[in-house]
Amino acid sequence: MKLPQGFRFAGVSAGIKSRQGALDVTLIVSDSDCTAAGVYTTNQVVAAPVVLSRSRTPNERFRGIVVNSGNANACTGSRGMNDAIEMGKIAAKAVSAANPTQTAASEDQWIVMSTGIIGRFLPMDKVARGIEAAAKELATGEQAYLNAADGILTTDIARKIGDREVVLPSGKKVSIVGMAKGAGMIGPKMATMLGCLITDAALSAIQAQRLLQQAANRSFNCISVEGHTSTNDSLVLLASRPTEASPALSQEDERTFAIALTEICIEIAKKIPDDGEGATHLIEIDIDGASNDADADKIARSVAMSNLVKTAITGGDPNWGRIVSAVGYAGVPIRPDVLSLHLNGIHLFDKGEPLPFSAAEVSSSIKSRKLTKIDLLVGYGAGKATHWTTDLNTEYVRFNSEYTT
Amino acid sequence: MKLPQGFRFAGVSAGIKSRQGALDVTLIVSDSDCTAAGVYTTNQVVAAPVVLSRSRTPNERFRGIVVNSGNANACTGSRGMNDAIEMGKIAAKAVSAANPTQTAASEDQWIVMSTGIIGRFLPMDKVARGIEAAAKELATGEQAYLNAADGILTTDIARKIGDREVVLPSGKKVSIVGMAKGAGMIGPKMATMLGCLITDAALSAIQAQRLLQQAANRSFNCISVEGHTSTNDSLVLLASRPTEASPALSQEDERTFAIALTEICIEIAKKIPDDGEGATHLIEIDIDGASNDADADKIARSVAMSNLVKTAITGGDPNWGRIVSAVGYAGVPIRPDVLSLHLNGIHLFDKGEPLPFSAAEVSSSIKSRKLTKIDLLVGYGAGKATHWTTDLNTEYVRFNSEYTT
Repeated sequence: MKLPQGFRFAGVSAGIKSRQGALDVTLIVSDSDCTAAGVYTTNQVVAAPVVLSRSRTPNERFRGIVVNSGNANACTGSRGMNDAIEMGKIAAKAVSAANPTQTAASEDQWIVMSTGIIGRFLPMDKVARGIEAAAKELATGEQAYLNAADGILTTDIARKIGDREVVLPSGKKVSIVGMAKGAGMIGPKMATMLGCLITDAALSAIQAQRLLQQAANRSFNCISVEGHTSTNDSLVLLASRPTEASPALSQEDERTFAIALTEICIEIAKKIPDDGEGATHLIEIDIDGASNDADADKIARSVAMSNLVKTAITGGDPNWGRIVSAVGYAGVPIRPDVLSLHLNGIHLFDKGEPLPFSAAEVSSSIKSRKLTKIDLLVGYGAGKATHWTTDLNTEYVRFNSEYTT
Repeated sequence: MKLPQGFRFAGVSAGIKSRQGALDVTLIVSDSDCTAAGVYTTNQVVAAPVVLSRSRTPNERFRGIVVNSGNANACTGSRGMNDAIEMGKIAAKAVSAANPTQTAASEDQWIVMSTGIIGRFLPMDKVARGIEAAAKELATGEQAYLNAADGILTTDIARKIGDREVVLPSGKKVSIVGMAKGAGMIGPKMATMLGCLITDAALSAIQAQRLLQQAANRSFNCISVEGHTSTNDSLVLLASRPTEASPALSQEDERTFAIALTEICIEIAKKIPDDGEGATHLIEIDIDGASNDADADKIARSVAMSNLVKTAITGGDPNWGRIVSAVGYAGVPIRPDVLSLHLNGIHLFDKGEPLPFSAAEVSSSIKSRKLTKIDLLVGYGAGKATHWTTDLNTEYVRFNSEYTT
C-alpha cells in the first residue's frame, strides 16, 4: 500500500468508548494546506459536527480531520455545537504544538466528525486528552493509517479500508486511500456512517466536491443495513492543494481519477452492509430497464429495504414473490408485463409469468454463498442501478433490542 | 351483535391451506342487489383478483364477495386472471342453485379476493368444491359470520372483527359489521391484508366509495407491520342498495354514518399490527404540528417503518435518538428547534434539546404495557396523523426466514 504523500495519521484510545483500550480518537492531518470536500446526511435532525463541517467544505485551505467515536454529539443543542467547535480548536493547537516546524494550523481548518450514541454530551476532557495524544503520534506509516481507520469504528467487526495507486493519462502517479465505519445506521450501539478519503492528487475545491459527490452517488448512497438515515453520516475527501508546480488535474486525468475514486468508494462502501449488524449475507440488487437511473435507484432501494426480502435471504427461502412485489411499490413506473427476475443467476419470473424452478436448488445457492445476487429487468428503459444491503436475522434484532442506554 | 339485514355469511374448509380443517373459503352474499365499493393495493404488481374486483367497483348491482385464503393468485399471469373470473362464475352458479327462490346471481356481480402465497396457481378443483359447500351453508346467524371472518385469515393468530349499531339523525337504525385479516404484509406465510365491511345502511355507489376511501385513509392506510405493500390488499364495503322505499342516506345521516364507519375501521385495522407476526407491542405514533396532514402522515410512516425504533421498543430501550432521527429523514419539512418527544407520556426531548430522564422509568413503562405511545410535535403547523405498527423481534425474523416454499 502506498499512502498519499503529505498526509499523516493517528488513532488513539481516549476512554470515550466503554471497552478498555478501544481506539476512539482519530487524526488525519495534511502537512500543509490541502483541499477538502464533503457530503453529509440528508437528515434534517443533524448532529453538531455535521453542521460545522458542512459549513466549512469545500475549501482549499484545510489541514485535516478530527474524529471521535463512541458518542455522536447529536441532539445535544447549543452545548453540542460549542463542543464540536472546541474539537477543531484543540486539534489546531495540539497539531501546531507537536509540529513546531510546520505552518501553525488554525481552528477552522478542520473537519470534525463524531459517531456513537445520540443525545449525550461529549466527555470533553477525555476528547481533549485524546486529540493531544493523537497529535503526538501522527505518522506516515501503514500502522498509523490502520490505527486511524480503527479509531473511527464503533459496532463494526471488520476494519473498512481500501487503496489504489493510479497512473493518470498525463503520466502522474497518485495514491488514494480510504476508510469508513458503519454496521447499522445509528443508535445506541454507536454506528453512524463515516468515511474519509485521502489522495495526493491535486484537486481544486470544486473539482474535489464534484468528484466526491459522483463517487458517493454510486457507492455510499447505494448501501443500507436497515435504511435508517443517521444524524451523523459524513463522507469527506482530502486532496493535495493545487499549486503552480502541481496544478489541479486536467480533464483527462480527472476522468481516470474519477473512475478509481468511484471504484475505491464502492469497494469500501460494500464492506458496510457486508459487516451489517448480525448479517450473514451481502445482497446485491441490480436493476435494469427502468425509465432512468433515478427510477432504477428507487426500485433497488425498495427491494433493499424490504424486511421480507431480507428475512427470505436469511432463511435461504426462494420466495421470489417478495422481491417482485417490492418492485411494484417502489413508487416509480414499471412494466409488469416485462418484469423478470434472476436470483443467483436462476431465472424465476419472466415477463410477468412464473417459471418452474427447483426450490432446493435456489435455496442451496443462497445458503452456500455469502453474496446473494438479485437481477431485475423492469422495463425497456436505459435506467440502471446497483444497491448493496444485508439480510435481516435474529442477531440484528437481538443486538438492537438490547437495553443499552 | 346485530348483523346487517339482508346479508348471509359462510366460511368452510376446502383444503387450500395445508392445515387440516382450516377454514379457507368465505362467501358473503346479499339476498338482492346491493352496493359495493372497494379500495385496493397501490402496488403495480397486482394480483389477478384485485385487477378483476377493481374493474367492478363501485357498483349498485352487486351480490357479494367470494374469498379464498392460502393462495394469493398473484404473479400468475393470464391463467391467474382466468381463475379469478372463474371464481365469480362458480359463486354465481352455486349461490343461485342453493337459493332457487331468489333472483339468480350473475358471474360479474362478485368481488373476488385471494390471499396467501404468491406465484402459485390456484387449485381450482378445491376452490370450486369450497365455494359450492359455502353456498349451501349461507346463513344469517353470528356463527356463520364468525366462520366467514375465520375463512379469510392466514398467518393471523387473532380473529379481526368489529361491529356497530348506529342510530342516524333521521331516526334510522343501521348496523355495520367488518372483518379483516393480516399479520404480515405478504409472503409465503400468506398474509396479505383483506377487509370486508357490510352494512344495511342504504348507500349509492358514489357515496359508498367516498365513505370507504375516507375511512380507509384514517385506518387501514395508517397501519403497518413491516411496510411491504402487498399485491393483494383489498378493502371492500357492501351496503344496501338505495330504493324508493329506502333511499340513500341524507347528508346529515351520512355524516353520522361516516364517523361510525371510520371508528369501526380503526378498531379492526389496529388489530392487524396488534397481531403482527411475532409482535409483543402495538406502537401508536401521534404526530402534531406538521405543515399539513399529508406531511404528518409521512413523518408517522417514517417512524413506523424504522427497524431501529421497533427493536428499541422490543427491548424496552429508552433510546429516543432513534425516534427523533427517523422524523428527520421523513422527507418533509420539520422544525428541529421545535421538535419535541413524549414516550408513554414521559417528556424526553424538548425543542431540540435533550431532557434529563430516568432510563429505568421509561424502560419499565415500555416493558409493562402492550401499547407504546410515541407523541411528536414537529412544528407549528396544523397537520396531524396517527399510525399504528408493531415492534420487531426475533420471532418475526424467525417466522419470516423459515424455509416454506
